[in-house]
Amino acid sequence: MSKQDAYHSQVRKALENDGWTVTHDPFTIRLEDVKFYVDLAAEKTIKTGEETRKVAIEIKVFGGLSFLNEFEKALGQYLIYKQFLDDLFPERILFLAIADDVFEESFSLPSIKAVVSRQAMKLLIFNPEREEIIKWIE
Amino acid sequence: MSKQDAYHSQVRKALENDGWTVTHDPFTIRLEDVKFYVDLAAEKTIKTGEETRKVAIEIKVFGGLSFLNEFEKALGQYLIYKQFLDDLFPERILFLAIADDVFEESFSLPSIKAVVSRQAMKLLIFNPEREEIIKWIE
Repeated sequence: MSKQDAYHSQVRKALENDGWTVTHDPFTIRLEDVKFYVDLAAEKTIKTGEETRKVAIEIKVFGGLSFLNEFEKALGQYLIYKQFLDDLFPERILFLAIADDVFEESFSLPSIKAVVSRQAMKLLIFNPEREEIIKWIE
Repeated sequence: MSKQDAYHSQVRKALENDGWTVTHDPFTIRLEDVKFYVDLAAEKTIKTGEETRKVAIEIKVFGGLSFLNEFEKALGQYLIYKQFLDDLFPERILFLAIADDVFEESFSLPSIKAVVSRQAMKLLIFNPEREEIIKWIE
Protein backbone atom coordinates (compact mmCIF):
# COMPACT_ATOMS: atom_id res chain seq x y z
CA MET A 1 0.00 0.00 0.00
CA SER A 2 1.37 3.46 -0.85
CA LYS A 3 2.01 5.84 2.03
CA GLN A 4 -0.75 8.07 0.62
CA ASP A 5 -3.23 5.19 0.76
CA ALA A 6 -1.99 4.10 4.21
CA TYR A 7 -2.41 7.63 5.58
CA HIS A 8 -5.87 7.86 4.04
CA SER A 9 -7.01 4.79 5.92
CA GLN A 10 -5.21 5.85 9.13
CA VAL A 11 -6.76 9.34 9.17
CA ARG A 12 -10.18 7.83 8.49
CA LYS A 13 -9.73 5.45 11.44
CA ALA A 14 -8.32 8.20 13.67
CA LEU A 15 -11.48 10.24 13.04
CA GLU A 16 -13.72 7.26 13.75
CA ASN A 17 -11.73 6.42 16.91
CA ASP A 18 -12.47 9.99 18.05
CA GLY A 19 -16.22 9.66 17.52
CA TRP A 20 -16.47 11.28 14.08
CA THR A 21 -18.72 9.91 11.35
CA VAL A 22 -17.02 9.86 7.96
CA THR A 23 -19.72 11.03 5.55
CA HIS A 24 -17.79 11.33 2.27
CA ASP A 25 -14.72 9.51 0.96
CA PRO A 26 -13.89 11.53 -1.09
CA PHE A 27 -15.91 14.75 -0.82
CA THR A 28 -16.62 16.10 -4.32
CA ILE A 29 -16.81 19.80 -5.13
CA ARG A 30 -18.56 20.08 -8.50
CA LEU A 31 -18.10 23.33 -10.37
CA GLU A 32 -19.34 24.09 -13.85
CA ASP A 33 -15.98 23.41 -15.46
CA VAL A 34 -14.10 21.17 -13.04
CA LYS A 35 -14.47 18.75 -10.11
CA PHE A 36 -12.27 18.74 -7.04
CA TYR A 37 -12.00 15.75 -4.72
CA VAL A 38 -11.20 16.46 -1.09
CA ASP A 39 -9.95 13.28 0.61
CA LEU A 40 -12.55 12.97 3.39
CA ALA A 41 -15.51 14.70 4.98
CA ALA A 42 -16.73 13.95 8.48
CA GLU A 43 -19.13 15.25 11.09
CA LYS A 44 -19.60 15.08 14.82
CA THR A 45 -22.12 16.47 17.26
CA ILE A 46 -20.01 17.71 20.12
CA LYS A 47 -22.74 17.83 22.78
CA THR A 48 -26.30 16.55 22.58
CA GLY A 49 -28.54 19.22 21.11
CA GLU A 50 -25.65 21.28 19.86
CA GLU A 51 -24.84 22.06 16.28
CA THR A 52 -23.07 19.37 14.26
CA ARG A 53 -19.48 20.25 13.34
CA LYS A 54 -18.65 19.44 9.70
CA VAL A 55 -15.11 19.16 8.36
CA ALA A 56 -13.42 18.41 5.05
CA ILE A 57 -9.95 16.95 5.23
CA GLU A 58 -7.15 16.88 2.67
CA ILE A 59 -4.35 14.48 3.67
CA LYS A 60 -0.72 15.24 2.80
CA VAL A 61 2.18 12.82 3.22
CA PHE A 62 5.12 15.16 2.48
CA GLY A 63 7.24 12.13 1.66
CA GLY A 64 9.05 13.46 -1.41
CA LEU A 65 12.49 14.92 -1.92
CA SER A 66 11.54 18.57 -1.51
CA PHE A 67 9.35 19.59 1.41
CA LEU A 68 9.07 23.14 0.04
CA ASN A 69 7.85 21.92 -3.33
CA GLU A 70 5.17 19.83 -1.70
CA PHE A 71 4.24 22.59 0.69
CA GLU A 72 3.72 25.04 -2.20
CA LYS A 73 1.41 22.53 -3.87
CA ALA A 74 -0.43 21.81 -0.61
CA LEU A 75 -0.98 25.51 0.06
CA GLY A 76 -2.37 26.15 -3.44
CA GLN A 77 -4.65 23.15 -3.18
CA TYR A 78 -5.81 24.14 0.30
CA LEU A 79 -6.72 27.68 -0.78
CA ILE A 80 -8.54 26.54 -3.92
CA TYR A 81 -10.58 23.95 -2.03
CA LYS A 82 -11.25 26.48 0.73
CA GLN A 83 -12.48 29.11 -1.72
CA PHE A 84 -15.06 26.79 -3.29
CA LEU A 85 -16.07 25.20 0.03
CA ASP A 86 -16.65 28.70 1.44
CA ASP A 87 -18.80 29.51 -1.60
CA LEU A 88 -20.78 26.27 -1.77
CA PHE A 89 -20.62 24.64 1.70
CA PRO A 90 -19.85 27.48 4.09
CA GLU A 91 -20.56 25.38 7.18
CA ARG A 92 -17.79 22.91 6.31
CA ILE A 93 -14.32 23.71 7.68
CA LEU A 94 -11.26 22.58 5.68
CA PHE A 95 -8.25 21.02 7.40
CA LEU A 96 -4.94 19.85 6.02
CA ALA A 97 -4.09 16.56 7.77
CA ILE A 98 -0.40 15.95 8.41
CA ALA A 99 1.45 13.35 10.47
CA ASP A 100 2.89 14.45 13.81
CA ASP A 101 6.51 13.84 12.73
CA VAL A 102 6.13 16.07 9.64
CA PHE A 103 4.46 18.72 11.78
CA GLU A 104 7.29 18.71 14.31
CA GLU A 105 10.13 18.63 11.77
CA SER A 106 8.93 20.86 8.96
CA PHE A 107 6.00 22.94 10.17
CA SER A 108 8.20 24.30 12.96
CA LEU A 109 10.39 26.18 10.44
CA PRO A 110 9.84 29.93 10.94
CA SER A 111 9.09 30.57 7.26
CA ILE A 112 6.54 27.76 7.10
CA LYS A 113 4.89 28.90 10.36
CA ALA A 114 4.68 32.42 8.92
CA VAL A 115 2.90 31.17 5.78
CA VAL A 116 0.53 28.88 7.70
CA SER A 117 -0.38 31.81 9.94
CA ARG A 118 -0.75 34.42 7.16
CA GLN A 119 -2.87 32.10 5.03
CA ALA A 120 -4.92 30.94 8.02
CA MET A 121 -4.37 27.27 7.19
CA LYS A 122 -6.11 24.91 9.62
CA LEU A 123 -4.23 21.73 10.45
CA LEU A 124 -5.20 18.31 11.76
CA ILE A 125 -2.21 16.58 13.32
CA PHE A 126 -2.43 12.80 13.56
CA ASN A 127 -0.28 9.88 14.60
CA PRO A 128 -0.31 7.31 11.78
CA GLU A 129 0.77 4.25 13.78
CA ARG A 130 -1.70 4.77 16.62
CA GLU A 131 -4.43 6.00 14.22
CA GLU A 132 -4.98 8.83 16.66
CA ILE A 133 -5.82 12.52 16.35
CA ILE A 134 -3.19 14.56 18.19
CA LYS A 135 -4.66 18.03 17.76
CA TRP A 136 -6.71 20.37 15.63
CA ILE A 137 -4.99 23.70 14.96
CA GLU A 138 -7.27 26.54 13.88
CA MET B 1 16.78 23.40 -24.32
CA SER B 2 13.88 22.57 -21.99
CA LYS B 3 10.67 24.55 -22.44
CA GLN B 4 11.28 26.04 -18.97
CA ASP B 5 14.71 27.28 -20.02
CA ALA B 6 13.39 28.49 -23.38
CA TYR B 7 10.59 30.47 -21.70
CA HIS B 8 13.06 31.92 -19.22
CA SER B 9 15.17 33.35 -22.02
CA GLN B 10 12.10 34.47 -24.03
CA VAL B 11 10.53 36.32 -21.08
CA ARG B 12 13.85 37.96 -20.34
CA LYS B 13 14.11 39.13 -23.95
CA ALA B 14 10.46 40.23 -24.04
CA LEU B 15 11.14 42.46 -21.02
CA GLU B 16 14.27 43.90 -22.59
CA ASN B 17 12.45 44.44 -25.92
CA ASP B 18 9.91 46.47 -23.92
CA GLY B 19 12.56 48.69 -22.35
CA TRP B 20 12.92 46.90 -19.00
CA THR B 21 16.29 46.37 -17.34
CA VAL B 22 16.66 42.86 -15.94
CA THR B 23 18.38 43.39 -12.57
CA HIS B 24 18.31 39.86 -11.08
CA ASP B 25 18.33 36.43 -12.71
CA PRO B 26 17.23 34.90 -10.39
CA PHE B 27 16.01 37.18 -7.59
CA THR B 28 16.85 35.59 -4.23
CA ILE B 29 14.66 35.97 -1.15
CA ARG B 30 16.85 34.99 1.82
CA LEU B 31 14.99 34.08 5.00
CA GLU B 32 16.57 32.77 8.18
CA ASP B 33 15.71 29.15 7.40
CA VAL B 34 15.24 29.01 3.64
CA LYS B 35 16.01 30.73 0.33
CA PHE B 36 13.52 31.24 -2.46
CA TYR B 37 14.55 31.99 -6.04
CA VAL B 38 12.14 34.03 -8.13
CA ASP B 39 12.98 33.63 -11.83
CA LEU B 40 13.62 37.27 -12.74
CA ALA B 41 13.51 40.81 -11.40
CA ALA B 42 13.39 43.87 -13.59
CA GLU B 43 12.84 47.59 -13.40
CA LYS B 44 11.78 50.42 -15.66
CA THR B 45 11.30 54.13 -15.25
CA ILE B 46 8.04 54.82 -17.01
CA LYS B 47 8.52 58.57 -17.53
CA THR B 48 11.61 60.67 -16.86
CA GLY B 49 11.65 61.83 -13.29
CA GLU B 50 8.96 59.39 -12.25
CA GLU B 51 9.33 56.56 -9.81
CA THR B 52 10.98 53.39 -11.07
CA ARG B 53 8.64 50.41 -11.30
CA LYS B 54 10.15 47.20 -9.90
CA VAL B 55 8.81 43.75 -10.63
CA ALA B 56 9.64 40.16 -9.76
CA ILE B 57 8.56 37.51 -12.23
CA GLU B 58 7.97 33.79 -11.80
CA ILE B 59 7.63 31.99 -15.13
CA LYS B 60 5.31 29.00 -15.52
CA VAL B 61 5.17 26.72 -18.54
CA PHE B 62 2.08 24.63 -17.67
CA GLY B 63 3.30 21.95 -20.04
CA GLY B 64 2.51 18.88 -17.93
CA LEU B 65 -0.33 16.40 -17.99
CA SER B 66 -2.53 18.11 -15.42
CA PHE B 67 -3.12 21.84 -15.68
CA LEU B 68 -4.93 21.86 -12.32
CA ASN B 69 -2.01 20.20 -10.55
CA GLU B 70 0.41 22.74 -11.94
CA PHE B 71 -1.96 25.61 -11.19
CA GLU B 72 -2.24 24.53 -7.53
CA LYS B 73 1.55 24.52 -7.27
CA ALA B 74 1.86 27.87 -9.06
CA LEU B 75 -0.71 29.47 -6.76
CA GLY B 76 1.03 28.24 -3.61
CA GLN B 77 4.40 29.38 -4.88
CA TYR B 78 3.01 32.77 -5.93
CA LEU B 79 1.45 33.42 -2.52
CA ILE B 80 4.57 32.35 -0.60
CA TYR B 81 6.86 34.53 -2.72
CA LYS B 82 4.37 37.40 -2.47
CA GLN B 83 4.21 37.15 1.32
CA PHE B 84 7.97 37.44 1.75
CA LEU B 85 8.37 40.06 -0.99
CA ASP B 86 5.69 42.17 0.72
CA ASP B 87 7.57 41.80 4.00
CA LEU B 88 11.09 42.41 2.70
CA PHE B 89 10.79 44.28 -0.62
CA PRO B 90 7.39 45.97 -0.49
CA GLU B 91 8.08 48.11 -3.56
CA ARG B 92 8.52 45.05 -5.79
CA ILE B 93 5.38 43.67 -7.44
CA LEU B 94 5.18 39.94 -8.18
CA PHE B 95 3.83 38.65 -11.49
CA LEU B 96 3.26 35.13 -12.74
CA ALA B 97 4.40 35.02 -16.38
CA ILE B 98 2.40 32.70 -18.65
CA ALA B 99 2.35 32.24 -22.40
CA ASP B 100 -0.59 33.70 -24.32
CA ASP B 101 -1.85 30.28 -25.50
CA VAL B 102 -1.99 28.94 -21.92
CA PHE B 103 -3.73 32.12 -20.81
CA GLU B 104 -6.38 31.82 -23.50
CA GLU B 105 -6.97 28.08 -23.10
CA SER B 106 -6.75 27.50 -19.37
CA PHE B 107 -6.99 30.83 -17.55
CA SER B 108 -10.34 31.44 -19.25
CA LEU B 109 -11.95 28.58 -17.27
CA PRO B 110 -14.49 30.11 -14.84
CA SER B 111 -13.04 28.29 -11.80
CA ILE B 112 -9.49 29.40 -12.60
CA LYS B 113 -10.63 32.99 -13.22
CA ALA B 114 -12.41 32.91 -9.86
CA VAL B 115 -9.24 31.79 -8.05
CA VAL B 116 -6.99 34.28 -9.85
CA SER B 117 -9.42 37.05 -8.91
CA ARG B 118 -9.95 36.00 -5.26
CA GLN B 119 -6.22 35.56 -4.67
CA ALA B 120 -5.39 38.79 -6.50
CA MET B 121 -2.79 37.07 -8.69
CA LYS B 122 -1.05 39.44 -11.08
CA LEU B 123 -0.23 38.01 -14.51
CA LEU B 124 2.24 38.86 -17.25
CA ILE B 125 1.09 37.42 -20.58
CA PHE B 126 3.80 36.95 -23.17
CA ASN B 127 4.19 35.51 -26.65
CA PRO B 128 7.15 33.10 -26.62
CA GLU B 129 7.88 33.02 -30.35
CA ARG B 130 7.83 36.79 -30.81
CA GLU B 131 9.51 37.38 -27.40
CA GLU B 132 6.88 39.99 -26.77
CA ILE B 133 4.89 41.18 -23.78
CA ILE B 134 1.17 40.98 -24.61
CA LYS B 135 -0.25 42.47 -21.39
CA TRP B 136 0.14 42.97 -17.68
CA ILE B 137 -2.97 42.00 -15.70
CA GLU B 138 -3.20 43.48 -12.20
